[in-house]
Amino acid sequence: MNKPLILISNDDSIFSKGIKTLAKLMSALGEVVVVAPDTHQSGMGHAITLDRPLRVNKVPDFLPDVEAYTCSGTPADCVKFGKHYVLKGRKIDLVVSGINHGSNSAIAVIYSGTMSAAIEAALEGIPAIGFSLCDFGADCDFSHTYELVQKIASKVLTEGLPHGIALNVNFPAKQEEPIKGIKICRQTDALFRESFEERKDPYGRSYYWMDGFLQNEDKGGNTDEDALAENYASIVPAKFDLTDYKALEVLKSWDL
Amino acid sequence: MNKPLILISNDDSIFSKGIKTLAKLMSALGEVVVVAPDTHQSGMGHAITLDRPLRVNKVPDFLPDVEAYTCSGTPADCVKFGKHYVLKGRKIDLVVSGINHGSNSAIAVIYSGTMSAAIEAALEGIPAIGFSLCDFGADCDFSHTYELVQKIASKVLTEGLPHGIALNVNFPAKQEEPIKGIKICRQTDALFRESFEERKDPYGRSYYWMDGFLQNEDKGGNTDEDALAENYASIVPAKFDLTDYKALEVLKSWDL
Repeated sequence: MNKPLILISNDDSIFSKGIKTLAKLMSALGEVVVVAPDTHQSGMGHAITLDRPLRVNKVPDFLPDVEAYTCSGTPADCVKFGKHYVLKGRKIDLVVSGINHGSNSAIAVIYSGTMSAAIEAALEGIPAIGFSLCDFGADCDFSHTYELVQKIASKVLTEGLPHGIALNVNFPAKQEEPIKGIKICRQTDALFRESFEERKDPYGRSYYWMDGFLQNEDKGGNTDEDALAENYASIVPAKFDLTDYKALEVLKSWDL
Repeated sequence: MNKPLILISNDDSIFSKGIKTLAKLMSALGEVVVVAPDTHQSGMGHAITLDRPLRVNKVPDFLPDVEAYTCSGTPADCVKFGKHYVLKGRKIDLVVSGINHGSNSAIAVIYSGTMSAAIEAALEGIPAIGFSLCDFGADCDFSHTYELVQKIASKVLTEGLPHGIALNVNFPAKQEEPIKGIKICRQTDALFRESFEERKDPYGRSYYWMDGFLQNEDKGGNTDEDALAENYASIVPAKFDLTDYKALEVLKSWDL
């Protein structure tokens, strides 16, 4: 039997600890090809690069038996390029993205380059998973997630996923007790509460840094934020259909 | 009575015909403030700028009685900056984005900077509309949409929108017959079928241009693509919740 073909990307760039960790874990499950950004692409959302060309470079010695490339574009570009150019004509069995340094729970998914790579694959009908750890540290400890990452990926390889679905998997940061288990959740209703800090450049002109935090606005239960707060891994099945079917009925009554 | 406060952005930049058209149309309905990118931001999706600071400049003589700013960031940045900095503390009654030069129907909404500005506002609980015309021309004719743009915006100003909803409004390109009316639709299931063209730079090194087209994959009815094909304006109520509730039940049976 042929090994499954697994394409890996992320948004923290090919130089992050998370993608090397993920590539090692996936190597036990199949043939691994990596196409990842050459610079940090956090916050890029589902951006694609249309106004300038892309550069791609092969990375020697990324990991034994792993073919790896950097791409000058966004995570979504990496998946598109990986599929259409690097793996031209080959059937990809799974696209995994991450492991992200930092949470992509709740509304973070809208800004997340990690999840955009997974959703890009799901749009193409390829089973896809975005993995994120609730720890922003460049050298954060992923060891408590190894078993679950492989378990979830194996399950998707054997079961497949409904068409268009990407799994948004978040892990709590390493704690003293092990992760309690996995919860299948819905996306938490939350806001990114941004602020802008004004500074002056050496020439006296203003510039502004954006910063912010996630504010949970959810009144219901079974959210990914709930699961993570209780030291569970969360899985949200994500699909890119923004249609709000309830609002659709409201608008139909508007007599426009 | 105070005039309603309307914040305008787009992704084609402050120099596009579409945003000036929209600002003129909105000036009849309220007090208009524009915060728009200083360069073309198409395909930026919901990117936000976290890895570098933003620059903002006031634009003199944009239009009489319209306060206008350029921002070095993405459309989502523009709305965040407009709300938190330019209009600090003031209640915004409506955010409109566009009019985009080119369609944002179907899956295009995932890559659309125009819609990201509208969705960014909707996340904050502000009624929001993204307007797009199915014509990419820099000097395209928006005149057949004027009445509908004002009608839809007026309706949203008086009725409001359900929390978190942004309207994705697309207009057919100008045809001999007038637009037939408005249809309330769901987002078409479609794919962006990209291709990459390899070229050589003057130094013999490869670079790649992405190009592509939208491929309709939808088997059902009542889609925005259907409406536009029949010369109707389409309105899809869009909400950023990617949770697929059907898939959620499938995953719960997985025994992870």
